[in-house]
Amino acid sequence: MTVALADLNRMDLADFEAALGGIFELAPWVAATTHAKRPFATVTGLHAAMMAAVQTASHDTQLAFLRNHPDLAGKAARAGAITDESKSEQTSARLDSLSDEEFARFHRLNEAYRAKFGFPFIVCVRRHTSDSILHQFERRLPHDAAGEFRAALQEVFYISRLRVVALVTGDGVPDVNGRLSTHVLDLHAGRPAADLAIELYELAGERAYRIVRTVTNNDGRTDAPLIDGRPLPIGRYELRFAVGDHFRSRGVDGGDPPFLDIVPLRFSIAEPEGHYHVPLLCTPWSYSTYRGS
Amino acid sequence: MTVALADLNRMDLADFEAALGGIFELAPWVAATTHAKRPFATVTGLHAAMMAAVQTASHDTQLAFLRNHPDLAGKAARAGAITDESKSEQTSARLDSLSDEEFARFHRLNEAYRAKFGFPFIVCVRRHTSDSILHQFERRLPHDAAGEFRAALQEVFYISRLRVVALVTGDGVPDVNGRLSTHVLDLHAGRPAADLAIELYELAGERAYRIVRTVTNNDGRTDAPLIDGRPLPIGRYELRFAVGDHFRSRGVDGGDPPFLDIVPLRFSIAEPEGHYHVPLLCTPWSYSTYRGS
Amino acid sequence: MTVALADLNRMDLADFEAALGGIFELAPWVAATTHAKRPFATVTGLHAAMMAAVQTASHDTQLAFLRNHPDLAGKAARAGAITDESKSEQTSARLDSLSDEEFARFHRLNEAYRAKFGFPFIVCVRRHTSDSILHQFERRLPHDAAGEFRAALQEVFYISRLRVVALVTGDGVPDVNGRLSTHVLDLHAGRPAADLAIELYELAGERAYRIVRTVTNNDGRTDAPLIDGRPLPIGRYELRFAVGDHFRSRGVDGGDPPFLDIVPLRFSIAEPEGHYHVPLLCTPWSYSTYRGS
Amino acid sequence: MTVALADLNRMDLADFEAALGGIFELAPWVAATTHAKRPFATVTGLHAAMMAAVQTASHDTQLAFLRNHPDLAGKAARAGAITDESKSEQTSARLDSLSDEEFARFHRLNEAYRAKFGFPFIVCVRRHTSDSILHQFERRLPHDAAGEFRAALQEVFYISRLRVVALVTGDGVPDVNGRLSTHVLDLHAGRPAADLAIELYELAGERAYRIVRTVTNNDGRTDAPLIDGRPLPIGRYELRFAVGDHFRSRGVDGGDPPFLDIVPLRFSIAEPEGHYHVPLLCTPWSYSTYRGS
Repeated sequence: MTVALADLNRMDLADFEAALGGIFELAPWVAATTHAKRPFATVTGLHAAMMAAVQTASHDTQLAFLRNHPDLAGKAARAGAITDESKSEQTSARLDSLSDEEFARFHRLNEAYRAKFGFPFIVCVRRHTSDSILHQFERRLPHDAAGEFRAALQEVFYISRLRVVALVTGDGVPDVNGRLSTHVLDLHAGRPAADLAIELYELAGERAYRIVRTVTNNDGRTDAPLIDGRPLPIGRYELRFAVGDHFRSRGVDGGDPPFLDIVPLRFSIAEPEGHYHVPLLCTPWSYSTYRGS
Repeated sequence: MTVALADLNRMDLADFEAALGGIFELAPWVAATTHAKRPFATVTGLHAAMMAAVQTASHDTQLAFLRNHPDLAGKAARAGAITDESKSEQTSARLDSLSDEEFARFHRLNEAYRAKFGFPFIVCVRRHTSDSILHQFERRLPHDAAGEFRAALQEVFYISRLRVVALVTGDGVPDVNGRLSTHVLDLHAGRPAADLAIELYELAGERAYRIVRTVTNNDGRTDAPLIDGRPLPIGRYELRFAVGDHFRSRGVDGGDPPFLDIVPLRFSIAEPEGHYHVPLLCTPWSYSTYRGS
Repeated sequence: MTVALADLNRMDLADFEAALGGIFELAPWVAATTHAKRPFATVTGLHAAMMAAVQTASHDTQLAFLRNHPDLAGKAARAGAITDESKSEQTSARLDSLSDEEFARFHRLNEAYRAKFGFPFIVCVRRHTSDSILHQFERRLPHDAAGEFRAALQEVFYISRLRVVALVTGDGVPDVNGRLSTHVLDLHAGRPAADLAIELYELAGERAYRIVRTVTNNDGRTDAPLIDGRPLPIGRYELRFAVGDHFRSRGVDGGDPPFLDIVPLRFSIAEPEGHYHVPLLCTPWSYSTYRGS
Repeated sequence: MTVALADLNRMDLADFEAALGGIFELAPWVAATTHAKRPFATVTGLHAAMMAAVQTASHDTQLAFLRNHPDLAGKAARAGAITDESKSEQTSARLDSLSDEEFARFHRLNEAYRAKFGFPFIVCVRRHTSDSILHQFERRLPHDAAGEFRAALQEVFYISRLRVVALVTGDGVPDVNGRLSTHVLDLHAGRPAADLAIELYELAGERAYRIVRTVTNNDGRTDAPLIDGRPLPIGRYELRFAVGDHFRSRGVDGGDPPFLDIVPLRFSIAEPEGHYHVPLLCTPWSYSTYRGS
């Protein structure tokens, strides 16, 4: 369900609150404050006005607002007392399939965080892998109160921006999507490597979860980007290229067993809204990669 | 304990047999036949004469000879009824630490092999990783009888050559040792990467066993080769380079998290007596490798 | 001046001959034979029919036809007794600016060719650099008569195809254009190299003629391909990249004088209708290139 | 003719002066001052003592000393009124084969230099190409008097160090030699490229002088370094590798004409006493290079 910016601009307060009520968790006053600023020329402008409402609220109001956010991976999340938006976002980072050990660590960090700052740990989970969320805990826990207050509000910015983009159609939509792509060149043949199998794994601790399985086309690319249409979750990844099979199918001798078989490229994504191009240039005896654009 | 070629050349038959009796499993006749060919100018010549004794024996003698070899990873190996040389060789390929599943597979292949060919599976384990030995089973099982007879004798050649080299000193020793080395160049700085941590893993199925942990010196090399002084076991390996730490220590920004952190290079060794140089050329945003020399 | 395929399909013989008379040098009978095959669904089909007319003519007619072609770089070319199409084509390969020595060599080869084969040397000059034309002379002169007859007709195919494409509009136009492009990635910074000066030279013997001078945009590419919209002349080229200036402008130390200043990439084009992508990946201390796509 | 450090340590003043008189141009007082500091444990110590004599002389003495140096490429150099050491050094940088235009430019800069500073331009020509010497003129001419005085004495240091190393044998000889080497890896075959022709050119303005012509051995290296046993002249160089011939001889198709034929690597040397390793990693369709060690 989406709503047009033009329609929002024309709504009375009740409809406006109803339409935008899910953007900020249990804080309908944000929509109320924003309503007074209509009309908005762009979706970016609408979101900025909503964030301004948060930023200019009193400290107590902000604190209550932060406290109203659900506990990440906590009891609340398991019992369902959160907005539907929160729920689907939290499953996106594999938070529903933590190992017992990870869950315990998560819980411990979460408790320490709440004990120190007095509000739950807030992070825009759609911009992170589960691995990265654990790192975020460890990075943010040493903050002082003011610094972490700012960090939490920055996450509120990211969370609400994604919700606004999903909900509101119109001009000036902020670009919240990243793109991860690859390209395989066979430098032995001097042409793109076609029909070469590629897997993309998300790394979490010592484990690797396969999230994409595809094959190159005649141009050595994949028909669709490996990831696009959404933020690239910050985290560690590994691309695996079936280089050995490729050269075997061309009848090129690369040793027995072949010097190169499955070639892994391990890299991190740091900019969820960025474009990452991670190509592979290979022969049976060498390969190279780089962050392209 | 070693023996000089010059001394062997002067020994009577009893001493000669005693000295060389461990080279060929439970087949003292090989030493006896070889004794008649003395003197030998080189260690290579001595070994060639021993192999000639095997090659020119009757088929029945050869078959009995192959049958006398111990069962790889089998009951015999566990009970100790084999020469000491065999025992230490078989532990070198991690055959003593197979998983239950691998052991079952091993056993199954071993039984199928013996059932088909009438003699135990013989392989020079010091030239293979456990992973590669499993592959050898699968490659050799489809052989016809004559082809596999030749394959088994070729392994006898490799096994006995290593034993001769370990036992006999003198001129003309065959080169049975491979070498694996690396080198790290920091192309961002235009100089070797010093103090960069490196790990070498042997891959077996889905598992990785760390076999070397070292650090680069000021020339970007390791003070000693990663492997040398012995055959390089055929198999799959992974080098892991702490590239992220290197650039962090230089104060070079590579993103947060860094685009490259642990860089894995995965490759296979196919020539145990070969020299493999697997360098890494890297920046915070790119790397390349190749089989060097 | 162009003519629509649909109009050609409707023309009577006289108009048809007049419209297409310039395609084949002084051989109006080709148009006449082709006229009978109308209508043509595609421009490719029209050209195929014209070539079929040539291919199915008697040997004497074909020979007369080849003899009617102007002498490359010869007196005829200087006196103007050739079709306008021939004239502009012959200047495209720098044939009008040969050195005295080259002109003498040209003339000598040309005479030897005519003496051996009985017709002038025919080559589609727009598909070649002057350097390559000299090589063509030397490659084709050793042919036997039948082989060279085929080679000459193949050139007639290329020449006439370009003329047809220039003249006739409509469906199914054959793709006669190549494309040469580049891309510069700064692997020190991990991003495209912007504002980097690039020159493209055509090499002829020991000399280099600059044919393009441009600069990279923010994506590390040039706003327009280095060459497109025409066949890529077969020959040798050199791209020169002002890598030293680029890193100097970024304040990156690359030595004094810098290890890399002007980086030349020298390569040949062999497929005039192909796409050549010749990128540069560089740091102040390293670079690499490859034939991309 | 060389002299042992041990012998110098034992000489009386007259012999000492006679032995070392050629080190500093027409300045026997340097040897005299140095004589009093005997004995010297190392050749480096001897040279340091000689330089200390120069550094601690009065400004007038130093100025007279600098003025006694011959004019580079000037009338004095042509008439022979300089020490033999100076003469052979000045021909090493191709100063005897300047074009008329270069000679005029040289002369003009030289005159401007002398007019501004009151002493001739002094440079250690064996550490520079002729191209680099012209650049040195242009870099040093804007100096103020004190800065250029220091620059001239630094060149005196380099000149005299080379002379001391050539003359005096013994312990602790300073390392004044650089080394330039290369290595060619054929990444298509996965092994060193043997028998591949290499040329090294020194670049001067728009011209290139070939200074080495060699071929790779079975290890892909040259039997001797491209330059060693002397300082590497600061300047621009180009290595040219006959990559096309190499792949042709292996029967590998790289296009016709081959995409890569002669591969030029253009680089500068900035550290005459440094080690420059400039390898080439190539396939018929790609290559890379880097400053190695």
